[in-house]
Amino acid sequence: MRSIEEHRKKIASLVENALAARGSYEHALEAGFQAGAILAERVVSALDLPPFDNSQMDGYAVNSTDLQAGPRVLDVAARIPAGHAPEPLVRGTAAPIMTGAPMPRGADAVVQIERADPARFLPEGGDQRVLLPGVEPGGFVRTRGSDIRAGDLLFAEGTVLGAAQWGSLVAAGVDTVRLVKPPRILLVSTGEELAESGVRLDPGKIYDANGASLSAALEAAGAQIEFERVGDSPEELLARVGRHPEVDLVVTTGGVSEGAYEVVREAFGDRGVTFGSVAMQPGGPQGWGHLSLDDLVVPVVCFPGNPVSALISFEAFLREPLLHAVARSLSRRESTAILAEGADSPPAKHQLRRGRLDGDGAVHFVGGPSSHLLHAYAQATHLVHLPVGVARVEAGDEVVVWALDE
Amino acid sequence: MRSIEEHRKKIASLVENALAARGSYEHALEAGFQAGAILAERVVSALDLPPFDNSQMDGYAVNSTDLQAGPRVLDVAARIPAGHAPEPLVRGTAAPIMTGAPMPRGADAVVQIERADPARFLPEGGDQRVLLPGVEPGGFVRTRGSDIRAGDLLFAEGTVLGAAQWGSLVAAGVDTVRLVKPPRILLVSTGEELAESGVRLDPGKIYDANGASLSAALEAAGAQIEFERVGDSPEELLARVGRHPEVDLVVTTGGVSEGAYEVVREAFGDRGVTFGSVAMQPGGPQGWGHLSLDDLVVPVVCFPGNPVSALISFEAFLREPLLHAVARSLSRRESTAILAEGADSPPAKHQLRRGRLDGDGAVHFVGGPSSHLLHAYAQATHLVHLPVGVARVEAGDEVVVWALDE
Repeated sequence: MRSIEEHRKKIASLVENALAARGSYEHALEAGFQAGAILAERVVSALDLPPFDNSQMDGYAVNSTDLQAGPRVLDVAARIPAGHAPEPLVRGTAAPIMTGAPMPRGADAVVQIERADPARFLPEGGDQRVLLPGVEPGGFVRTRGSDIRAGDLLFAEGTVLGAAQWGSLVAAGVDTVRLVKPPRILLVSTGEELAESGVRLDPGKIYDANGASLSAALEAAGAQIEFERVGDSPEELLARVGRHPEVDLVVTTGGVSEGAYEVVREAFGDRGVTFGSVAMQPGGPQGWGHLSLDDLVVPVVCFPGNPVSALISFEAFLREPLLHAVARSLSRRESTAILAEGADSPPAKHQLRRGRLDGDGAVHFVGGPSSHLLHAYAQATHLVHLPVGVARVEAGDEVVVWALDE
Repeated sequence: MRSIEEHRKKIASLVENALAARGSYEHALEAGFQAGAILAERVVSALDLPPFDNSQMDGYAVNSTDLQAGPRVLDVAARIPAGHAPEPLVRGTAAPIMTGAPMPRGADAVVQIERADPARFLPEGGDQRVLLPGVEPGGFVRTRGSDIRAGDLLFAEGTVLGAAQWGSLVAAGVDTVRLVKPPRILLVSTGEELAESGVRLDPGKIYDANGASLSAALEAAGAQIEFERVGDSPEELLARVGRHPEVDLVVTTGGVSEGAYEVVREAFGDRGVTFGSVAMQPGGPQGWGHLSLDDLVVPVVCFPGNPVSALISFEAFLREPLLHAVARSLSRRESTAILAEGADSPPAKHQLRRGRLDGDGAVHFVGGPSSHLLHAYAQATHLVHLPVGVARVEAGDEVVVWALDE
C-alpha cells in the first residue's frame, strides 16, 4: 500500500505531464483581461513607454538653463493639460503642466507647483508671472522609453497575466496575445445508482453529488469540464470516454474497489490503468495511468465513488497539480522577507515598493518608487512594506511583504 | 493626513455597506456550480439522505438473527447491485450486496466480503453457500436520513457554496437556489490623455492601462465590471456615471490631485465625495464618499491615475473588502490547530477528518469518519490530518489542518 505522499507525487507527475502539452489560442485584448491567463508566446512592446517625455508632477515646464543662475521670475505660458500636443516653450517662460502631459519642445525640466510662488496655478489669461527656484535638467521628467522601448521583450512565454501584466500589455499597444489553453478534463461519474438532477428518483437511485462537487472543484481550480455519467457497463464507459478525444485528462468517480460491479476497474484495468490502495481514509482505492483506447492514449485518474472520498481525493491529489498547471499558487498572503538591498523611504509615508523574491531567497526591489513604472510592477512578485517612520532600510533587514501570486 | 490603516478601515466600511444590500437571483443547478456563490435564502432538503437504507460495504446482506448463535452457513441469494430495488431477503439466506445498494426488506446488517468464507463473491447461478460470522443488527448499514432528513435545513442563508455544498444540494434533490448577486462595479478611467486600445495614438495620448489592470483585478476579486472612459469634462463624467444606476459601487482613476484639470475632484467634490491624502507612497491622493447625482446616491472610491498608484490603491484598500463581500478568504493554506475533542484513527492510514474551527478556537470534528457524510463535509471548515502511525488523538492535541476556505 503506498503512502499518501507517494501517491501525491505520482498523480502530480501524471497530471503535470498530461497538462504540459496543452495548445494555445489567440486572444484579442478587447475580449477581456482574465487574471491568471498564461502567455503561450513572448510579447514585445509595440511602443516606447512612456511614448513621449512627460511631466511627473503638476508644476511648470521650464528650460533649466533659464534658472541656471538661481530663482527667477518667468512669464507664464499657456497651460499644458494631459492629452494634448503642446506648443514649443518660448525661452524665458514657464508653462503650467499637468502630471502626464507631454513636455513641450524646448523644456527639459519641471518645477513642482508647491515650489513655485505663488504655489498654485494662476487663472488663465492676462500677463501672469511666477517666481521659480533653480532646477536640474531632467528634473521630474519621465523620459520616453524609460519603462520599456518598442521591440523590447515585454513578457516571456509562460508569464502569468495578472492585473499589472494586462495593464502593461494595453499600455504597450499590444492588441492580441497567444494564451495557453485551460486544462480540459473529462469528468465521468459512474454507477448504476446515479440519477440526473430534476428526475424523480426511482427506488435504489440517488442523485449524482460527485458530478456537481467535482465539477465545482475542478472549475474552481481552473479547468474546463466535459461531463459524462454512466452506469455499470464497461463498454458504455469506454464509448463515452472515446467521445472526448480532445481532453487532457480523464477523472472518474466510482467503480474502483473490490466489489462485483466495478465498472472503471473492469473497463480500464486491461488498458494501461493501474488500481491499488493508498494508505489514507477515506479514499483508499485509487486508479491511475494512461488508458489505451483505439488510437487514443489518455491520462486517467480514478477516484472512489463515495462523495466524501471523491472530494478528498481531489483535495489530496488533484488540486495542487491543477493549480500549478494553471499557474495559480495556493494563495496570496502576508509574510516577512529579507531585503537584498537597502532603500530610502520617506518616513512620513507608508511606502509600498515593488519587489521580487529571487533565487537567493531575498527580496530585490524592482524599478524605483516612481508610480508610472507599471512594466516594472509587472515583474514584481511582492509588495514590500516600508511603514511610516522608516527612513532607511538596509540589505539584510526583515520586512513585511504581500505576495502578488494570484 | 490619515494613515494607511485608517484609510483601509474607512474604505472597508464604505465597501462593506455598499455591497451589503446587493439583491439576489434564481439559479438553476443545471446551469452550473460556481464555487464561491453565496446563498441568499436558506435551503431545506427535498429528500432524506441517504434516501434509503443501503450497504456501506461490499458484502452480504443478512438478517442478524440468522447469525445470532454465531458463524453459520447460509444459502446465497441473488446479487444486489447498486441502483436497483432488491427482492426481499428470504430468512436463512445471504444476499451479495454492493456498496451503496439498497438493503433488501428483511435484512438488517451487512457482513463485509472479507469476513465471509470464501472471502469473494461467488459466480452467479447454482446452489452457492457461504460461511458467515455473527453480526450486530445495523452493522455496516447506512440508514435512511442519517445524513439529513427531508425538510431539515440543508444550508443557511449566507452559506458559501463550494464543491461540497454544491454536491450536497444536488444529492438532496434541490433544483434551484437563490444566490446573492456578485458586486457590480462601475469602473471609470478618467483623463483627456487616454486612448482606446487598437486606435492609433495621437500626440500626447497613451493607452488606458488602468482600465485593463483594474478590470482584471476587480473581476479576479469577484466583481462584475461596467466600464466608462472619460476625458477632463466634469459634466461628461457625471453623465456617464448616471448611465449606470444599478451598480453597487463606482471606482474612478485619475483626476484626484491638486492640478488644474482634476475631473473627478471637480465633478464629485461638491456632491458628497471627500478628497484627501493618505500617508502612503504611491497612491497618496484618494477620494471616498457617497455621490449625490439626481436621485442616485452612489458609493464612490476614487484612486489616483498613475497606473501603479491605482493598482496599489486597489491592493491596499479594495481587494480585501471585495473578497470579504464575495466570501472569499485570502486563501486556503496549511496550518496547525488544537483539537477540541479526541478521536481514534486507524494507525495504518493517513486519516483526513472533517473539522470545524469554532468560536472557542479549537477544531471540532464534523460528522464521523464515514465517507458518505457529504452534508457533514459541507459544514466543515478544515480537513484535519491524522497521519499514519496515529491511533488516537486527544482534546488539546495540535494537528495539521487544511483550511477549506475558498
